[in-house]
Amino acid sequence: MAEEMNKFSRELRDDDHFHDECGVIGIYSPGDTGIARDIYFGLHSLQHRGQESAGIAVNRYGNIDYHRGMGLVQEVFSDDRIRTMQGDIAIGHVRYSTTGASLACNAQPLVVFFKGGAIALGHNGNLVNANILRDELQDEGYLFQTTIDTEVLAAYIARNIKDGDIEGAIAKTMKIAQGAYALVITSGEKLIGVRDPLGLRPLVLGKTKNGYVLSSETCNFNLLGAEKVRDIDPGEIITIENGEISSMKFDFGETRKTCSFEYVYFARPDSVMDGRSIYLARHECGKNLAKEQPAEADVVIAVPDSGNVAAMGYAEQSGIPFGIGLIKNRYVGRTFIQPDQKMRDISVRLKLNVLKENVEGKRVVMVDDSIVRGTTSGQIVRLLKDAGAKEVHLRVACPPVTDPCFFGIDTPEKKQLMAAKYSVEEMRGMIGADSLGFLSVDGMKDAIGLGRDNVCTACFTGDYPMELPERKDK
Amino acid sequence: MAEEMNKFSRELRDDDHFHDECGVIGIYSPGDTGIARDIYFGLHSLQHRGQESAGIAVNRYGNIDYHRGMGLVQEVFSDDRIRTMQGDIAIGHVRYSTTGASLACNAQPLVVFFKGGAIALGHNGNLVNANILRDELQDEGYLFQTTIDTEVLAAYIARNIKDGDIEGAIAKTMKIAQGAYALVITSGEKLIGVRDPLGLRPLVLGKTKNGYVLSSETCNFNLLGAEKVRDIDPGEIITIENGEISSMKFDFGETRKTCSFEYVYFARPDSVMDGRSIYLARHECGKNLAKEQPAEADVVIAVPDSGNVAAMGYAEQSGIPFGIGLIKNRYVGRTFIQPDQKMRDISVRLKLNVLKENVEGKRVVMVDDSIVRGTTSGQIVRLLKDAGAKEVHLRVACPPVTDPCFFGIDTPEKKQLMAAKYSVEEMRGMIGADSLGFLSVDGMKDAIGLGRDNVCTACFTGDYPMELPERKDK
Amino acid sequence: MAEEMNKFSRELRDDDHFHDECGVIGIYSPGDTGIARDIYFGLHSLQHRGQESAGIAVNRYGNIDYHRGMGLVQEVFSDDRIRTMQGDIAIGHVRYSTTGASLACNAQPLVVFFKGGAIALGHNGNLVNANILRDELQDEGYLFQTTIDTEVLAAYIARNIKDGDIEGAIAKTMKIAQGAYALVITSGEKLIGVRDPLGLRPLVLGKTKNGYVLSSETCNFNLLGAEKVRDIDPGEIITIENGEISSMKFDFGETRKTCSFEYVYFARPDSVMDGRSIYLARHECGKNLAKEQPAEADVVIAVPDSGNVAAMGYAEQSGIPFGIGLIKNRYVGRTFIQPDQKMRDISVRLKLNVLKENVEGKRVVMVDDSIVRGTTSGQIVRLLKDAGAKEVHLRVACPPVTDPCFFGIDTPEKKQLMAAKYSVEEMRGMIGADSLGFLSVDGMKDAIGLGRDNVCTACFTGDYPMELPERKDK
Amino acid sequence: MAEEMNKFSRELRDDDHFHDECGVIGIYSPGDTGIARDIYFGLHSLQHRGQESAGIAVNRYGNIDYHRGMGLVQEVFSDDRIRTMQGDIAIGHVRYSTTGASLACNAQPLVVFFKGGAIALGHNGNLVNANILRDELQDEGYLFQTTIDTEVLAAYIARNIKDGDIEGAIAKTMKIAQGAYALVITSGEKLIGVRDPLGLRPLVLGKTKNGYVLSSETCNFNLLGAEKVRDIDPGEIITIENGEISSMKFDFGETRKTCSFEYVYFARPDSVMDGRSIYLARHECGKNLAKEQPAEADVVIAVPDSGNVAAMGYAEQSGIPFGIGLIKNRYVGRTFIQPDQKMRDISVRLKLNVLKENVEGKRVVMVDDSIVRGTTSGQIVRLLKDAGAKEVHLRVACPPVTDPCFFGIDTPEKKQLMAAKYSVEEMRGMIGADSLGFLSVDGMKDAIGLGRDNVCTACFTGDYPMELPERKDK
Repeated sequence: MAEEMNKFSRELRDDDHFHDECGVIGIYSPGDTGIARDIYFGLHSLQHRGQESAGIAVNRYGNIDYHRGMGLVQEVFSDDRIRTMQGDIAIGHVRYSTTGASLACNAQPLVVFFKGGAIALGHNGNLVNANILRDELQDEGYLFQTTIDTEVLAAYIARNIKDGDIEGAIAKTMKIAQGAYALVITSGEKLIGVRDPLGLRPLVLGKTKNGYVLSSETCNFNLLGAEKVRDIDPGEIITIENGEISSMKFDFGETRKTCSFEYVYFARPDSVMDGRSIYLARHECGKNLAKEQPAEADVVIAVPDSGNVAAMGYAEQSGIPFGIGLIKNRYVGRTFIQPDQKMRDISVRLKLNVLKENVEGKRVVMVDDSIVRGTTSGQIVRLLKDAGAKEVHLRVACPPVTDPCFFGIDTPEKKQLMAAKYSVEEMRGMIGADSLGFLSVDGMKDAIGLGRDNVCTACFTGDYPMELPERKDK
Repeated sequence: MAEEMNKFSRELRDDDHFHDECGVIGIYSPGDTGIARDIYFGLHSLQHRGQESAGIAVNRYGNIDYHRGMGLVQEVFSDDRIRTMQGDIAIGHVRYSTTGASLACNAQPLVVFFKGGAIALGHNGNLVNANILRDELQDEGYLFQTTIDTEVLAAYIARNIKDGDIEGAIAKTMKIAQGAYALVITSGEKLIGVRDPLGLRPLVLGKTKNGYVLSSETCNFNLLGAEKVRDIDPGEIITIENGEISSMKFDFGETRKTCSFEYVYFARPDSVMDGRSIYLARHECGKNLAKEQPAEADVVIAVPDSGNVAAMGYAEQSGIPFGIGLIKNRYVGRTFIQPDQKMRDISVRLKLNVLKENVEGKRVVMVDDSIVRGTTSGQIVRLLKDAGAKEVHLRVACPPVTDPCFFGIDTPEKKQLMAAKYSVEEMRGMIGADSLGFLSVDGMKDAIGLGRDNVCTACFTGDYPMELPERKDK
Repeated sequence: MAEEMNKFSRELRDDDHFHDECGVIGIYSPGDTGIARDIYFGLHSLQHRGQESAGIAVNRYGNIDYHRGMGLVQEVFSDDRIRTMQGDIAIGHVRYSTTGASLACNAQPLVVFFKGGAIALGHNGNLVNANILRDELQDEGYLFQTTIDTEVLAAYIARNIKDGDIEGAIAKTMKIAQGAYALVITSGEKLIGVRDPLGLRPLVLGKTKNGYVLSSETCNFNLLGAEKVRDIDPGEIITIENGEISSMKFDFGETRKTCSFEYVYFARPDSVMDGRSIYLARHECGKNLAKEQPAEADVVIAVPDSGNVAAMGYAEQSGIPFGIGLIKNRYVGRTFIQPDQKMRDISVRLKLNVLKENVEGKRVVMVDDSIVRGTTSGQIVRLLKDAGAKEVHLRVACPPVTDPCFFGIDTPEKKQLMAAKYSVEEMRGMIGADSLGFLSVDGMKDAIGLGRDNVCTACFTGDYPMELPERKDK
Repeated sequence: MAEEMNKFSRELRDDDHFHDECGVIGIYSPGDTGIARDIYFGLHSLQHRGQESAGIAVNRYGNIDYHRGMGLVQEVFSDDRIRTMQGDIAIGHVRYSTTGASLACNAQPLVVFFKGGAIALGHNGNLVNANILRDELQDEGYLFQTTIDTEVLAAYIARNIKDGDIEGAIAKTMKIAQGAYALVITSGEKLIGVRDPLGLRPLVLGKTKNGYVLSSETCNFNLLGAEKVRDIDPGEIITIENGEISSMKFDFGETRKTCSFEYVYFARPDSVMDGRSIYLARHECGKNLAKEQPAEADVVIAVPDSGNVAAMGYAEQSGIPFGIGLIKNRYVGRTFIQPDQKMRDISVRLKLNVLKENVEGKRVVMVDDSIVRGTTSGQIVRLLKDAGAKEVHLRVACPPVTDPCFFGIDTPEKKQLMAAKYSVEEMRGMIGADSLGFLSVDGMKDAIGLGRDNVCTACFTGDYPMELPERKDK
C-alpha cells in the first residue's frame, strides 16, 4: 500500500519534464547580520531548480557554520536557526533528485576542513569523469563520505591549496574535472564563483548595496536589491575579497556551450542568462515554431505554466488568437490520498482542468515546452477531446528529446525517451493528436540567440560537447 | 518575535482580496467504496474557496462518521482515515477564515444527533439574523457548542423534523433564516442540497456514473467524471434518495441575486455558475473595462493569477498587446522566516517579480481583479516603475469596493476599504499609478450577463439585497 | 502493514491494566495572568489519568475561551496558545480511551453557550443511564454533537439554569443522573466542583496563595503551591465565587462508595484520596496479601512501576527481602517499528528486562497490582524462569477481576476478563507460575481503610453500587 | 522568548548528572532479513546512553547503506526505512551531547568510501590527542567533514588498510590514538569490535541463534535472544567473519582502567560489565556508603531512579528501613511551556514530588548517585523539608566529583563542579542538608570489585590514566 501510494505520489510530481538538479547562490556582505536571511530568500526564488534538499553555510573570518536538510527551503530552516547563522559571506544551495536514494548526507553546501581552514562549496552541474577522479583520489588515500561528484571537486580543490592559494587550486582542478559546473565557494575571507570552461551551467554576478551576489539566475536580484553586473564567463574564477572583485580566466580553447534546456524549460522567464532573456528566448521559440510548424486552427493554448510563453509567441506569429485552455490547480501538494482505480487519468486531472469555453468545437493548437517520455501528453490531448475539441494540434517548442544529459540535468535513460524510439508520426499516433510538430534544432538555436555554435543541444542531437569517459547506459 | 512572524505570515497570505468563506460538496453513490476518496478529490478542486479547515462526513444507512481538522484537505486526511470512511452518501466542506479565533470546533460538516437519527450539514454562506435566531433557540433551551451560524441552521432543521420529514424542516427553516446559504445535507438515506431564496451562494448538480454530485462549483466535475445537470434554483430544496431526484421550490417572491464577486474573483475560471461561464464573464469584464477606461499604452499586463483573464479581455478589446509583466513564485508557502527590515516591499517581492522585457520603457496597462484595502497595489506599481515602466495605468476589472459583505464573504470592515474613504483620484495618488480606472457597476453586471437585476452588488454599492437586522460595524 | 503496526503499537501500550478515563482540575485565581499555565502544569501531574486528549478552558467574566486536542498535554498546547488564554477561572481535563473511535470532538472540557452565558465542564466518570437521558433530551429536541455522556450532563445542567442559579440546575441534574461523576465547572464568575452521591470518583479542594484549586488528585498540589483543604463530599456541590467557598450537599440516602481501583492502581501514590494515602493503602494491600497468601521464597520483586509499593509491603510483612527483579525501559514510546516474528514476547521484553542477580536460582515472589486479561503475566513469568528463577510465586495485590466497571473506568468486556472465566488454579497453569494468590476483597477493603461498606468493589464482586439500567454486554 | 523556553527545556533535561556520550551495537547475522530491526530494538535498549542522535548502517557484501538522524531511535527510523535496510552485518549508534552545536552531520555511524570498499564505524569514547592526529591527517591532505574525533579514527583506519587487512590498519591506529574507544566496525564481510588498551569504555560479545552481537551493554541481550560470551578485552580487536570469531590482542603494557562512572550511574543495572553486575556494584556502593557515612535516621530514601539501588544497599547495611520518598512523573517530556516566575523550584517539582507519608516528621537519609554541579540537590532537600522532614541526611554513593572526564563522558568544566570549589561542609550548607557524606574512592573501588588498580577514577581524583596532551580548560 505504502509503495503504491509512493508510486502515485511520484506520478503526481512527474510532469514529464527534465529537471534541473541544483541552484546556487552566494552573498558577500561583511557586517550584515541578515546575510543568512538574504540567502534564505534568494534560495526561495531558486526553489524551482531543486526541491529535494536545501542548505546554507555562513563564513565568519574563515569559520564556517552550516545547516542542511531534506525538503523545501522553508521546511529546512527555522527562524531560530537562521538567526544564529552569522557571517560576512554565505552560500546556499537547493537540490533536486528523483533517485530513491535521496540521502540527507548528499545535501549541499559541502563543507570540508583542511589544514589551513575550511571551505564550503555549492555545485550545480555534473562531472563526466567523476568516477575516474574518485578512483584517483581514493588511490591517494582520500576517503569519501558522500556519493556526489561535488565531493570530488571539493577534495581536489582543498587538497591543492598551497599557501592559501585557493584560486590556484581551483584552476588545477578545472584542468582535470570534465563536465559541467557552476560553483559558489567560500573560504577564508573570500566568496568565489566558478564556471566550467564551456559555460554549460549558468552563474551571474550582481551588486548589492553592501556587497555582491552570485546566483544561478537573476530572478532573485530584484528581491535582494541587486543590480546585475555580468555573467561569469566560461572558464572564469571570480573572487570577491575585501570588497573587491578579481578574476582569473582560463582559455581552454573551447567554444561556449550554454545549456539550451535552461532556455527551453528550467530557468524562470524573469531571469536573464548569458545576456539573453529567458522570456524572449522562449517567446522566440514559439514564434519560430509557428513558422516551421504552422497549423490551421482557431485557438492557441498552452500547457501551463511552462508552455505559456512559447504559446504566446506561437499565437503572435501565427495570428491565431491565444486563449487559456487548461486551468492548473494551485494546491497540488506532494503527498496524496491514493485514488480509486476508476478515476481515469487522475494524476493529470488533479493538476489540470479544461477551460471548455476556449476549446469546445474548436481546432486547438496546444503548445508544450518539451516532450520527454510522452506520459502526460496523451492524457492532456484526451482531456481536450473529451471537452469537445474538434482537432488538437500539438506543437512542441523544442526539438525531439533523443538523448540523456550528462551535465547536471536529471533525465531518464535513453530507452525511456519517446523520441529516441519512435518517429514523429508514431508519437503523434500514440499521443492521439491530429498533428504533431517540433521546433527544429536550428530554430531553437536561433531563438536562444547566442550563436548556433554556442549552445549545447546534446539532448536533442546526441552531439555531446565533450567526450563521455564514463558514459553508461544511463 | 513569534507575533512579528505571525504578522508577516499573515501579510504574505494577504493579497488584498476578499476571500470566500467556504466550499461544499456532496456525493450520492450507493455501494461505492471510494466515496470518501471522491469527496477528498472533489474538495481538493474547491480548495481555493477555503484553506483553513476541511471535513468529510459519510453516511451509511443513517449512521454518520466524520472527520474534520485544521489545514488543507491534504493535511487533514490520511489514506488510513479515508479508507475507514465508508458510506453510500458523503458530504465535504472547506472553510476559510482570517479571524484569529480560527477554532477547530468551528470546522464543518457539522454533525448533530437527534431522536430520529443524525444529520450532517455543510454550509457556504452567512445568515444576517443568526444572533436573533441564536437567541430564540437559546430561549427554548438550545445549547450552542460552536460560534458559527451554521449551528443555527442545523439546530433549526433538526428540531423541526417531524416524522422524518427533513425537507419540511428545511423549508420551515428557510422561512426564518435570512441571508446566504448553499447547503449540502445528508440524513437518513438522503443527500439534500439547498440554496437560499436569492441564490446568493452557488450550488450545482451533476450526474456521475453511479449517482449524483452537488458542488459549489463545476470545476471538479471533470475530475469526478460528472456531467453538469443544472444549477440548484434559488429557494430550492433538492433531494436525492433511492437514486432519484425530487425537488421542492419555494417562491419567496424575491429576485435572484447571485453574488457578483464569484464572477469577479472567487470562482475558478473553469467553473460555470448559474449558466454563465466564469471565464467568459471575467473576460467580458476586461473588455468592458477597456471600453469604459481606455488607456494609451504599449502593453496590457495582469496581476497574476486572478487578473489574467480580465487582462486578456482588456487587451483584446483595446488592441493593445497582452504580455506577461509579472512572474509569480509558485513556492510561496504559509510559514516564513521573518525578513530583514531593509528589504522593501518584501512580501510582494517574494510573491511577484517583474518581467522587465515587457515593461521597461513601456507604457503599461496593469489589470487587477479588484482593490480592497489597496495595500499591495502601490507596491506592485512601484515594482513596475523600478523596472523602468514609463507609465503605469491601473485598471480594475470591477467597481470600487465600498461596503462589506454580510453574505458569506470575508471582508474587512468598511473603514478599511480604500474606496470607502478615498476618491478615485486620491486612490490613484496613493497607489502611485499614472491613471486609475474601475469598471462600472453596469459594465460588470452586463459582463456577468445574468440580467442587471439578478446579481448582488452590495459590496460595490451598499445596496444590500435584504435588510440587515444585525448590521454591526463589521 | 499499517494495521499490523497499529496492532503492535496497541499491544505495546496495553499493559493489561484497567485504565482511568479522565482527570480534572479547576483553578480559581482572579487577576492571575498565569492561570492557564498553572492548569497546564497541574494537568501534567494528572497525565497518568488520561493520555489521549487534553483541554483547557479559561473564563473571564463569563466569556469562555478554550482549546482541546488529541495527545499528551505537552503535545496539545503551545506556549503561544497558553499565553493567549487569560481568565480568572480555568478548568482542565485529560482523557483516556482505548476505543478506535477516539474522536477529537469527544475531547473535554465541553463548552456550551446558553441564553445567560456559557458553561465549561470537565467530567471524570460515567453515567449508567446516559442513553435514557440522551433519549429524553432528544425527545425534547436537544441535538447532540458528541457521543460522550458528558454532553448529557452539560445539557441537563445548562437547560435547567433559571435566573443564573447554576447550583440549582446541577442539583436537579444530580437527581436524575445515575452513575459516577466528578465535575469541575466554570460559568459566570464561579468555579464549581461536584461529586456524585456515592463519591465514586475523587475530587479534592486545595487552597493556593491567591485562590483555590479543585483536582482529581492531590499529587499536583505541591507543584501548584496548594495546601489540601478537604475532599469534596459525596453528593456535594462546592462553589467558589468572590473568593469565598459555599457548599450544598444533598443527602441521597446512600452510602459512600469510593472506587477501590483508585487505591489499587490508578491514582499516584503521592496522592491522598478521601483522607487515605494511596501509598499507605497500597502498602497495606501488600502486607495483607502477605498474610493471606504467604510464600516460601528468597526474594520479593515487583512488576514495575505499579506493583512496587505493594511488593514492599509484602516484603515487610513476610520478612522476605525486597529486591529489584525487573528493570523498565524508560524510553518506550508510543510508536514503534514492527518486530520480526522471531522475537518471542517482544512487547514485554521491550518494556521489561530481568535483573538476573536477584532472580537466578531463587524462589521469587512477584507482586503485581492486578491481573485483567492475563496477557502479560505469563510472559513476565517466562522471563523470570528463562533467567533462572527456581520458582515464581505470583501474588496479586487485589482480588480477581471478574466484572467490568460502568463508572468511568476503561475495562474489557466480561468475557475478556481472565478471572471471569477461569479458576485461580486454571489461571496459575496458564500463567505458568508455581503458585498464584490474590488479595481477598476484605483484605483489600481493610487496607483501603475507609470502612468495608464505603468502597465500591464491583469489578471484583459484580456487586454494583446501583442498578445498571443500560447494562450491555460491555 | 524562544531562548528562555529553550533554557527552561535544557534545565528540565538537566538532572545534574554526567552523561554518557554514546552507545554502540553490531550484529552479525547473514541471511537475516530482520537485522536492521534487531539493531533498532537493540539501540532502543541503549537509549539511556544517548538521546540526541541515532544511526544504523547495514552491510551487504561490502556495500553499505545507512541512515542517521537527530532524535530518539524511534523518531529517526520509520518502518519503511528499516525494511529497506538489508544486509548480513549491521551496526548502530546512539549519541548524547549537550553542546548547542549538536549537528546532524556529527551523527554516527560514520561511513567512508575508500579504494577497496567502504567502512562503517560507530564509536563510544573520546580521543585525547584527536586534534594532534587531526592536524597530522590534514598535513597529509586529509579533509574533514565533521568535527568529531570519530572521523580521525575512521580516517586513520581506512587509510592504513593494505590489501584488505583492516585489522592491521586498526592495530596501527591503536598505537597512535590515545584515549577511550569502544568501536563497532563493519567492512567487507566482517563485523569488528575494538576496545581501547585501558578498556575505559565497555564492549561485550554475545551469541545469538544465527550469529553474534557486540554491544556497549548486555541489557539488550535478553531482548535479542543473545547469550553473553565474554567482554572484549582491553586492547583487543575481535573479528567475526564467515561465522567465526578471531581475535588479536595487543599488550600495550597498561593496566586495565574500566570507567567507574559506568558502575555509579551510566549503565543500566541489568547490565553486566567486565564481569561485574552493575546492580551488585551499585548495591555494594550503597552498603559501603552506610559503613563509611552512617546516619541516625528513620528512613532511607532514594533520588529516583538512579539512586534506587544504592539506597537499598544503604538501607540493608544500616538497618534503617528503605522507603519511597520521592515520586517521579513519568510523563516529563522534552519540550515544555515556560513556567510562571512565581513557581519555585519548578523544574524539580515537575519531575519529583514528595511522598509525605515516608518523610513527614522523620529523619531522612536521602541517597543520590552523584553530585555534579549541585544544582538540584538543594531543591530536593527543600522539597523534603517543606514536606515536614525533621532532618535530611544526604548520602552520595560515589566520591565528590572534582575533575572533568576526557574519555567520552559529557562533563561540565572543572569550575562548574561543586566539589572542585567547595569543601564538603560548604557543600552541605549550600544544599541545606543536615549532614552530607560521600563514599570514599576506595569504598567505591571495592564495591566495583575489579581490583583497586583496575578502574579509572579520574573524575574523583584528577588522576588521569594517561597524559592529556590536549587538555584544555574543559
